[in-house]
Amino acid sequence: MKTYNIAVLAGDGIGPEVMAEAIKVLDACAERFEFAFNYRHAFVGGAAIDTVGEALPPSTLACCEQSDAILFGSVGGPAWTHLPPDQQPERAALLKLRQHFDLFCNLRPAKFYQGFNHLSPLRSDICAKGMDILCLRELTSGIYFGAKERTATAASDTQTYQRDEIRRIAIKAFQAAQARRQKVTSIDKANVMASGILWREVVNEIAQDFPDISVEHMYVDNAAMQLIRDPSQFDVMLCDNLFGDILSDELAAISGSMGLLPSASINSQGFGLYEPAGGSAPDIAGLSIANPMAQILSAALMLRHSFAEEAAASAIENAVAACLQTHCVTRDLDPNQTVSTAQVGDTIAQMI
Amino acid sequence: MKTYNIAVLAGDGIGPEVMAEAIKVLDACAERFEFAFNYRHAFVGGAAIDTVGEALPPSTLACCEQSDAILFGSVGGPAWTHLPPDQQPERAALLKLRQHFDLFCNLRPAKFYQGFNHLSPLRSDICAKGMDILCLRELTSGIYFGAKERTATAASDTQTYQRDEIRRIAIKAFQAAQARRQKVTSIDKANVMASGILWREVVNEIAQDFPDISVEHMYVDNAAMQLIRDPSQFDVMLCDNLFGDILSDELAAISGSMGLLPSASINSQGFGLYEPAGGSAPDIAGLSIANPMAQILSAALMLRHSFAEEAAASAIENAVAACLQTHCVTRDLDPNQTVSTAQVGDTIAQMI
Ligand SMILES: CC(C)[C@H](C(=O)O)[C@@H](O)C(=O)O
Ligand SMILES: CC(C)[C@H](C(=O)O)[C@@H](O)C(=O)O
Repeated sequence: MKTYNIAVLAGDGIGPEVMAEAIKVLDACAERFEFAFNYRHAFVGGAAIDTVGEALPPSTLACCEQSDAILFGSVGGPAWTHLPPDQQPERAALLKLRQHFDLFCNLRPAKFYQGFNHLSPLRSDICAKGMDILCLRELTSGIYFGAKERTATAASDTQTYQRDEIRRIAIKAFQAAQARRQKVTSIDKANVMASGILWREVVNEIAQDFPDISVEHMYVDNAAMQLIRDPSQFDVMLCDNLFGDILSDELAAISGSMGLLPSASINSQGFGLYEPAGGSAPDIAGLSIANPMAQILSAALMLRHSFAEEAAASAIENAVAACLQTHCVTRDLDPNQTVSTAQVGDTIAQMI
Repeated sequence: MKTYNIAVLAGDGIGPEVMAEAIKVLDACAERFEFAFNYRHAFVGGAAIDTVGEALPPSTLACCEQSDAILFGSVGGPAWTHLPPDQQPERAALLKLRQHFDLFCNLRPAKFYQGFNHLSPLRSDICAKGMDILCLRELTSGIYFGAKERTATAASDTQTYQRDEIRRIAIKAFQAAQARRQKVTSIDKANVMASGILWREVVNEIAQDFPDISVEHMYVDNAAMQLIRDPSQFDVMLCDNLFGDILSDELAAISGSMGLLPSASINSQGFGLYEPAGGSAPDIAGLSIANPMAQILSAALMLRHSFAEEAAASAIENAVAACLQTHCVTRDLDPNQTVSTAQVGDTIAQMI
């Protein structure tokens, strides 16, 4: 039987609770689709700082290296905000994993689920037009990983993009658009940034290989505006690391249902890290009210992108959609519900 | 009689139309408050490219230098988008003026006007909480003016902030908060950027001199999210050049009434450039339907910040508010109206 090794990094806050439900659902998939999962649990984030003294211990990194994919919960919380920025759990764990495994392609799908439009902070007439956006963010270059300098009186950061770095994420965007609505909106600040000009040039070059896909270039400030005015105009958004960070969070806010948003960060070998778009939500940790759907949908992305198990991935996504239809949801999606984290997981697992 | 010299740079698209109304209103102020304006018209933007071959001709710059303030319309349009980025009207005219006059402090107020909440793309229950934000953007440093490099295979941009550059804009933010609701939210990406760490340090230093003001630090990605979820939580937002560009446009979209948003870009001598936050809107140029209110409110900011004529500035702002109350508005604010650009200007001028 085919066996997949998964590094399970549940992390802090609600991470462990929602991870337990994702594993339940993965087990149901294994049974139905006849493969096996080998889960390797490892500490990460604040939990790792507290036990081993660092957010991403070598043993955790080794565990990830020996696995076929990383299923990540979430890290961080008030207990660790006093640490210097570069030791904080989010940064120390995530940036290192991204760089170490060359996870250049970050995928953040965001859409309105039928019956849950009203969660969006946007007006209902705008929501009625629909939203189904796949945001692709370059994740291993740009201002995040460029040279940094600090003197007593000044500080600087450099953003450098190589043609090849832009090319490989752009290709992913055009490929994604082929399986969607054939449109790529590439975001830059080419009127101000040299790297923005190069970004636009390379995207236009790649576009020539995808004559069926329409490509549009949009300045990041305008994109921040257009997302609010009419999110239905976007299909695939293609962003650099920094702009993707900002716009994908704006997108998450617009969707209104952070608890439903998964994300994938993959490299060119198909290895990937899969995590909910939301944070560790320490305020509701341990209360059994956290929404596990984003973690479960992240597991679906893992099945699709790292294991090429499309049938199982779709089965999870359909089960989540069905669970939403029956209104078996945690209170973030419906304040009148008292359904627990585990009940949502059970329902989805049964529907696989 | 006190006489103020104003460099009037109407520019392209709707610029000239809305500028005519601002001048009408300024003339009414001059009469009521007994001072005089000396208007010096000069070409800028696409109009200047077409007549003199460059977006900011030396004669225009000289005109600005010899004036007490710049009243700016808007520049750009489809006729000039084929030009290389650094020759495009917006960039070539604006960035040079900002740098030349050291206009480091960009003020962008955005609020819901009573009776016009419904224009916001946000849900009415979110709007009901109100929004009245003053966004301060550092305008003469950061990634806009740092070193740029381009090779055949790569491109890079550097953002450098000096302590002093952060200090002077931070002081403006705290001073502004004193006259408002005593809160400053400083935006950075200190978990990733060295300049973000310095930004946060300097803001905390300045905060010590303003014990009555509460200061909050927010990562830019979270701010992009919070603005949509609950804009009522913000009073003064303090941003670097790039983040201010993105967030102030997001803010403008949230307000839903671009036609009402003025902006000011000032230096430490009180010299400034005043312009609507919106663009040149070439699609409606010449139709007499453009909303002149943002241009008129920009003139009010000029009276306040460059001429210290607070009474006249307030008179304009009150007249605009009164005009809104009587629903004498262009169709961007009410699709059922057929009021023209000039009628709005006349009404406001009469109310001075
Ligand atoms: C924690 C932080 C370093 C990270 C980022 O900026 O990439 C986070 O905001 C994200 O989007 O995953
Ligand atoms: C035209 C462009 C260079 C400019 C900027 O990015 O500053 C504009 O977007 C603005 O906000 O005034």
